[in-house]
Amino acid sequence: MYNYRLKIEYSGKNYSGWQIQPNVNTVQGEILKAVDIITGVQINLIGSGRTDSGVHALGQVANFQLHKQLDLYKFKHSLNSLLAEDISISDVTEVPLEFHSRFDAKKRSYLYLFTKDKSPFYNNFSSHYPPIFDLEISQLNEISKLLLGEHDFTSFSKKKTDTENMVCNISLAHWRRVKNKIIFRIDGNRFLHGMVRTIVGTVLEIAERKKSADEIIKILNQKSRESAGKSVEAKGLFLLNVKY
Amino acid sequence: MYNYRLKIEYSGKNYSGWQIQPNVNTVQGEILKAVDIITGVQINLIGSGRTDSGVHALGQVANFQLHKQLDLYKFKHSLNSLLAEDISISDVTEVPLEFHSRFDAKKRSYLYLFTKDKSPFYNNFSSHYPPIFDLEISQLNEISKLLLGEHDFTSFSKKKTDTENMVCNISLAHWRRVKNKIIFRIDGNRFLHGMVRTIVGTVLEIAERKKSADEIIKILNQKSRESAGKSVEAKGLFLLNVKY
Repeated sequence: MYNYRLKIEYSGKNYSGWQIQPNVNTVQGEILKAVDIITGVQINLIGSGRTDSGVHALGQVANFQLHKQLDLYKFKHSLNSLLAEDISISDVTEVPLEFHSRFDAKKRSYLYLFTKDKSPFYNNFSSHYPPIFDLEISQLNEISKLLLGEHDFTSFSKKKTDTENMVCNISLAHWRRVKNKIIFRIDGNRFLHGMVRTIVGTVLEIAERKKSADEIIKILNQKSRESAGKSVEAKGLFLLNVKY
Repeated sequence: MYNYRLKIEYSGKNYSGWQIQPNVNTVQGEILKAVDIITGVQINLIGSGRTDSGVHALGQVANFQLHKQLDLYKFKHSLNSLLAEDISISDVTEVPLEFHSRFDAKKRSYLYLFTKDKSPFYNNFSSHYPPIFDLEISQLNEISKLLLGEHDFTSFSKKKTDTENMVCNISLAHWRRVKNKIIFRIDGNRFLHGMVRTIVGTVLEIAERKKSADEIIKILNQKSRESAGKSVEAKGLFLLNVKY
């Protein structure tokens, strides 16, 4: 038996998220189909985690086991030829049999991108939201840094969820401005369903309403989705990478 | 009478080029429609030049005359609201009545972008062509610099053209590599129909076939489209800006 790890880039625009579901296009579904065509075997493709409908990835990771040994270079090339232009396999490696994309992930990083100007080139890959450019980046950072460390993130999770453990450990939550773009990066050991987009929306609301930064601590403590702010749109969110 | 100048960004993907034509979507046609809705007047929109079907622009320039004085800020905002996400008006200014986008243009700059890897994010905005990354950038520059100055570019023009004057003055023709991208920039007083894409394709062919750089001078001298190389695809080409 062999175990193969894929690194995957995709634009989420045309997909109902990562996870395979009946009657809709998903990234996992597309990759499964392509691997089946190449290997002639129905594999089990394990992703590092789901991404929602419309969310992009620069470094999603997935693995699968197979009886056959693959020529990695040829396999990567065949996969990329079969997959549409909006999914790209950037790396294929053989890994120890015990490697598991989801359970072994130590850190996941996400980016959220805001653009100030209407842009034909960034439109599908950012949120066009000029008001955020009137806020102070230092203020956004002051709020966000209160999320660092271990917290129960129930307030920032979609209510319909199978997850029982709501505790996540956030190691980075940082805003920066690069010309007419604002980029938020957040790293954590794990993230709940809808969590990054709800954090972004909530930090914005606190800053826009000129509330004090520790409002976010109150929201955490309430452990109820209603206390947090609105979720921002999917098309600005990227799974940047997964560390093992 | 007032004269207004627009600076325009667009993704050419969904348009049959700049110039208005019956029964197809064009960038000029979309802007005309939007201006007519806002002003209630049918205007004459003069572009700095055409871009072909699928070609993008970061800084196309156009102007139009109107009896009314416009609130520039409001007008820009209304135009952007009416136009689809793939066309953006980045600037509106009032200019002297005699200003003419096409006749007054002193220099036009184009970029051509190649990507080494399949990319979901650059796919619509670049040519994915790995073989060029095996060539020496210095060799591409050695060939291209022979185009500098004034030449008859008949060999690099589409054959079906209304243009009589085939002489263009090229002031810059430069290749550079930035990580896994290669960018070609070319500046000139004017360009013939299809000229930039044929120059790019021809320089590549000369380099790939290991011919000597002055092959490009022979091609210029033959004054026949057949002597030049294939034209590269439209989606990698951007009209960068127009100088007056």
